[in-house]
Amino acid sequence: MNDPEQPIMRVFAAYQAAVATKDTEAFAALYDEHVRVFDLWGPWASDGVAARRAMAVDWLGSPGSARVLVETQDVRIFPADAVATADAFLTYRAVAADGRELRAMSNRLTWVLRLVGGAWKIVHEHTSAPVEPGTLKAILKR
Amino acid sequence: MNDPEQPIMRVFAAYQAAVATKDTEAFAALYDEHVRVFDLWGPWASDGVAARRAMAVDWLGSPGSARVLVETQDVRIFPADAVATADAFLTYRAVAADGRELRAMSNRLTWVLRLVGGAWKIVHEHTSAPVEPGTLKAILKR
Repeated sequence: MNDPEQPIMRVFAAYQAAVATKDTEAFAALYDEHVRVFDLWGPWASDGVAARRAMAVDWLGSPGSARVLVETQDVRIFPADAVATADAFLTYRAVAADGRELRAMSNRLTWVLRLVGGAWKIVHEHTSAPVEPGTLKAILKR
Repeated sequence: MNDPEQPIMRVFAAYQAAVATKDTEAFAALYDEHVRVFDLWGPWASDGVAARRAMAVDWLGSPGSARVLVETQDVRIFPADAVATADAFLTYRAVAADGRELRAMSNRLTWVLRLVGGAWKIVHEHTSAPVEPGTLKAILKR
């Protein structure tokens, strides 16, 4: 791995840790104030870190629910001086307290990050699954 | 518009021109040899410019079919020294020879571009529509 990729790999590690520990503030801190998100689930787009924090509270904030473990696959990073990108596949696994896997789902992910006060922040996130032309249904993958 | 955004806006203009004129070679020339595409329509991912050219021939190569006009909306560009990104909404309009609109469909688009021999090439493209959780159907938009 090249050196310039390491700060971006640390953002992936921080994302995984925030989700696994349900730390919604640490999750929100990964994002730029002006982030624009194209999420697998509607709406078409969501702007700003406040919407991202609210999503994280909805997703991770319910006490007693399963833990979510995030695995990354085939991560490609393009680093530059002020902007970096990552494209990858993420698998989200919901795991019960006894370690049993409850469900799993994969996403295609693109991140655009920029340097803000010396820290890399996600300024654009795009997650999706492709669509089957005949049925218009998402092709979901574990 | 900042100066560093202009080369990326020219890629959008070249994309629109290649699609409108059904110039599959000009279309393929927009992409980096090692492009990875996450397309709204399956498969999960497609690698390399040869796959991109084949897709363009399938899409644009049939003689006598409608012309496709591409409109861009809310384009955001993040330029850096060696990498640039764009996130935007694209609307594809199929137009008959008499100018009548046959169909239209919008996509969410993310591009990652890198400088290759002085030219900006698309090294990652991600297009999608969000999915409705209840039905798992894509939320399509004109």
